Amino acid sequence: MAEQDLIARLLAPLATHPAARGLKDDAAVWAPPLGRHLVFSHDMMVENIHFLPQDAPADIAWKLAATNASDLAAMAARPAGCLLALGLSPAADTAWQQAFITGLSEALTAFALPLWGGDTSTSPTLTLGMTVIGHTEPSQALARSTARPGDTLWLSGTIGDAGLGLAMAKGDISPVPYLLARHHRPTPRLELGQTLATRATAALDVSDGLLIDATRLADASNVALHIHLDRLPLSRPARALGLAPLTAATSGDDYELLFTAPPGETFKATAIGTVHEGQGLHLFNHNQPEPVPARLGWEHEV
Amino acid sequence: MAEQDLIARLLAPLATHPAARGLKDDAAVWAPPLGRHLVFSHDMMVENIHFLPQDAPADIAWKLAATNASDLAAMAARPAGCLLALGLSPAADTAWQQAFITGLSEALTAFALPLWGGDTSTSPTLTLGMTVIGHTEPSQALARSTARPGDTLWLSGTIGDAGLGLAMAKGDISPVPYLLARHHRPTPRLELGQTLATRATAALDVSDGLLIDATRLADASNVALHIHLDRLPLSRPARALGLAPLTAATSGDDYELLFTAPPGETFKATAIGTVHEGQGLHLFNHNQPEPVPARLGWEHEV
Repeated sequence: MAEQDLIARLLAPLATHPAARGLKDDAAVWAPPLGRHLVFSHDMMVENIHFLPQDAPADIAWKLAATNASDLAAMAARPAGCLLALGLSPAADTAWQQAFITGLSEALTAFALPLWGGDTSTSPTLTLGMTVIGHTEPSQALARSTARPGDTLWLSGTIGDAGLGLAMAKGDISPVPYLLARHHRPTPRLELGQTLATRATAALDVSDGLLIDATRLADASNVALHIHLDRLPLSRPARALGLAPLTAATSGDDYELLFTAPPGETFKATAIGTVHEGQGLHLFNHNQPEPVPARLGWEHEV
Repeated sequence: MAEQDLIARLLAPLATHPAARGLKDDAAVWAPPLGRHLVFSHDMMVENIHFLPQDAPADIAWKLAATNASDLAAMAARPAGCLLALGLSPAADTAWQQAFITGLSEALTAFALPLWGGDTSTSPTLTLGMTVIGHTEPSQALARSTARPGDTLWLSGTIGDAGLGLAMAKGDISPVPYLLARHHRPTPRLELGQTLATRATAALDVSDGLLIDATRLADASNVALHIHLDRLPLSRPARALGLAPLTAATSGDDYELLFTAPPGETFKATAIGTVHEGQGLHLFNHNQPEPVPARLGWEHEV
């Protein structure tokens, strides 16, 4: 299909927000709410690296939008709009593209994230990218570097579900629909994220694994984090499969929020540890120290 | 190289703007000038489609930034910042990456376009993307759809140079340094673009060829464009090679600005035609009608 046709037939119907200008100009134009701070992130997804070729195109689209929206959630930002980068391989034919657009539309509706623009190209490898734009009240975007000794460490939702779902998608273990869905259709914690703006001291989203992302938060804030493995929130289906807390803490793609807040604050989340003077990660199980494993999660090579 | 090392060693030194937060958070955070309209664009470049594998990595980086900045110029926007998407193939080794970053740094300095963030991944195919963010005074972002009958049609710089440069890069004709540079290192017309905000009625950048981009402007504005081939601005090196105006008008990648303005306005640009009631493209040579060729420029397939 010619690029102009793809844009007109599949993308323009999604781009109804005025900032998109019907995808007819060289760029999108947006008048932000006066005085807000703006938040920008771009995440890529490459075939055979971030997803499997046999994954449903609608799920791939959902995940692309969800992982990007999760970065907004981690900054306590409200979604404003997004740009889509589509590098379409020959295998991504018209039927694939239509299914992708269906999943994209579902995700963008669910996350209140209008499509503003982007670019399309042919590519030998299916390569997807998204830029998300969000906004916060002035100086309320969260950071990783501002956790303080004495804070409580919180985690939203449950962890380890997406890792089990990935093993199911690969055929390594029998499928459980809830866990497969947690892998294919993660939920960015946008609502929780926005409530953190004035209440949390630091935050990030857990994409590569709780322990590796917690290490990043500890390093950025120059503090020590104590994490209690026995307090980690596991879903009922994950517990039914006997998922070990340490395995849950080193598997990725859950897109939960890990954040710190002064003691006394409460959240729809689980208190899993505490922030201390010092450095690095310190694990406990029923208050007994546990060794920190060599592998903390997914480390990406480039 | 681990992703964290690439970011810390090569990208973080470029990301000195406060919005980048040292590339240490999940997203960039920017406080825009109060009351401005914001402009967003994303352009991709894929190996063997948008550039040749043997192209110098510094030139590839320059062109990625230049083509994106050109979209800001076409909207009359001032650059604010950018996000970089790097899908690095195995051939893009550390030396390649360092040369790429050198060219990127030159371009971002030249265009006053700070690096705010982005993403990196491995990829079987070298795939690059950039999101640019710019700003204009309220309601001063230009569009393609607002040319008016009676306007004059203007073109910045010269056209056909990059097409000759591409033929030289491929070894089809003997190299001329000026023309090769026009292919490898296009100049986005940012300064001119910003002066158009209050003076032009419509604009776009010439990326796929003058005739195809002029057709897009005519269609979007629902007007007819009369273009005088004998008035097309050709560079001295292009004229020395005997470049025909019609060839110049159907070759791409010059990244000049094509814009319309009321009669009486003057610009550092060439008046190449006029806007009329009606539709489509009408060509003239020394005031005699010329047939419109079947091929107007580069039409992308996806």
